[in-house]
Amino acid sequence: MALSHCWVDGVELTAVPADDRGLNYADGAFETLWCEQGVIECLPLHRERLGRALQVLRFAQPLEVAYRMFSAAEAHLATITHCGSARLTVTRGSGPRGYSPPSKTSPRYVLSTTPLSVDPALPARCGFAAVSWAEQPQLAGMKLLARTEQVLAAQEAMERGWDDAIMLDGGGLVVSSSRGNIFIFKQGKFVTPALSRCGIAGTRRQLLMATVLPELGFEVIERAISPEEVASAEGLLISNALRGAQPVISLNERAYDLNAMPVSRIQTALRECAASCAG
Amino acid sequence: MALSHCWVDGVELTAVPADDRGLNYADGAFETLWCEQGVIECLPLHRERLGRALQVLRFAQPLEVAYRMFSAAEAHLATITHCGSARLTVTRGSGPRGYSPPSKTSPRYVLSTTPLSVDPALPARCGFAAVSWAEQPQLAGMKLLARTEQVLAAQEAMERGWDDAIMLDGGGLVVSSSRGNIFIFKQGKFVTPALSRCGIAGTRRQLLMATVLPELGFEVIERAISPEEVASAEGLLISNALRGAQPVISLNERAYDLNAMPVSRIQTALRECAASCAG
Repeated sequence: MALSHCWVDGVELTAVPADDRGLNYADGAFETLWCEQGVIECLPLHRERLGRALQVLRFAQPLEVAYRMFSAAEAHLATITHCGSARLTVTRGSGPRGYSPPSKTSPRYVLSTTPLSVDPALPARCGFAAVSWAEQPQLAGMKLLARTEQVLAAQEAMERGWDDAIMLDGGGLVVSSSRGNIFIFKQGKFVTPALSRCGIAGTRRQLLMATVLPELGFEVIERAISPEEVASAEGLLISNALRGAQPVISLNERAYDLNAMPVSRIQTALRECAASCAG
Repeated sequence: MALSHCWVDGVELTAVPADDRGLNYADGAFETLWCEQGVIECLPLHRERLGRALQVLRFAQPLEVAYRMFSAAEAHLATITHCGSARLTVTRGSGPRGYSPPSKTSPRYVLSTTPLSVDPALPARCGFAAVSWAEQPQLAGMKLLARTEQVLAAQEAMERGWDDAIMLDGGGLVVSSSRGNIFIFKQGKFVTPALSRCGIAGTRRQLLMATVLPELGFEVIERAISPEEVASAEGLLISNALRGAQPVISLNERAYDLNAMPVSRIQTALRECAASCAG
């Protein structure tokens, strides 16, 4: 098994300057990646989302920066033939005290790897988190560094003995789990929350919606979902880059029949789709 | 003039481990401090707010951690007889990949100093920021590491040639400036936004509301404020730990008469009050 590695701006290092604006103001974004034999799955989707995040943060030349950082990440991960998860963080770089970014900034990247084996088929026991998403329509969908609410929801899940927690927005509508997007299965169709006020628009959510589920013959609808609708659905899936599509076996006292949806067909199709989207 | 210093967990260092959860998930909080001759002004208020933030983030023994970190900060700043601003950041410490905090965490502190001289009397030219605050009533008032919106507002101010930007919440009500709390002056009274949905409850806001303004004979009201009410107010003040009470001279095309409020009396009283609150 490969060891963990960490590179900071091209150098194998395990520290970042204390004046990094990512640390001081959460001024940056990141991508969680899945790699097979040194190849980043869904690279174009991750790069595009990172570019959009840097654009929203008004980095100079955001798309070029995302491209450059991903090229570096690709090269590092290929060198070590990495299998497992990797994280690419891009911050605004170092800066003096104060919210205002320096007029000339040098974005910094941190690339770290974790040799990780997760079994995506392992069904998750879940509950509803007490903490809700912060609502910010102007930044919805982005994977910025500011992840306080998901940390609190994950902590709550751990303390309550759940594998993951389902999170709502401030208005009480369902958004996601603490670490992935969700899809409910209902009358032969999949429904996933619209992420107009908060949430992260996942790369695997994108594949499931645009390709995987339609190709398996399922309609996918994006709209508002209430907690009651999740609890009364026939099935519930959580998607992210590391686990693919993970079925939920229980949500508080509600138990789901794992045979209500063709879980392994979806998982296989998503895995194949992600592997073929290695840009 | 003193040089800048930085300590990480008691050691004079200028780097933090790349696996710090403050960097990776904005999992932590901070305080911006003003020091005179090595003494932190309003130390008890800062320590109390940090403790509350760590409590909300569900750190183990949050108040003890805040106490311990501030004792260390006090000792370091006294050693160098620091004058100017300092920043005390407390993160959840290092951790493996994933939102969920490790079951045993060792919080980390970063204390950095900036020899800074700002003239609090210099009136600010402002405008309304296009970016709004993220709304999260469960975390409102706290000074957590996730500060994306204030970074964007400060950047906008810089680009538009303003000294600071006035920020609204998602419902269009006024919350703060990019770097401080605000008070409007209207018919002999001060009004400051209630921070129930977002915003940071500043230490100087607390002194102004509870002590300084009442002792100068002014009533202070905390309630919702519309942008129109700010624009039509007789005066506008921004408060924070570094500048004390800063008058606003203009807000977009609206110009304020700086003589409408007794600005220098308020500034002097706030400075004296902060200095005597060095606990």
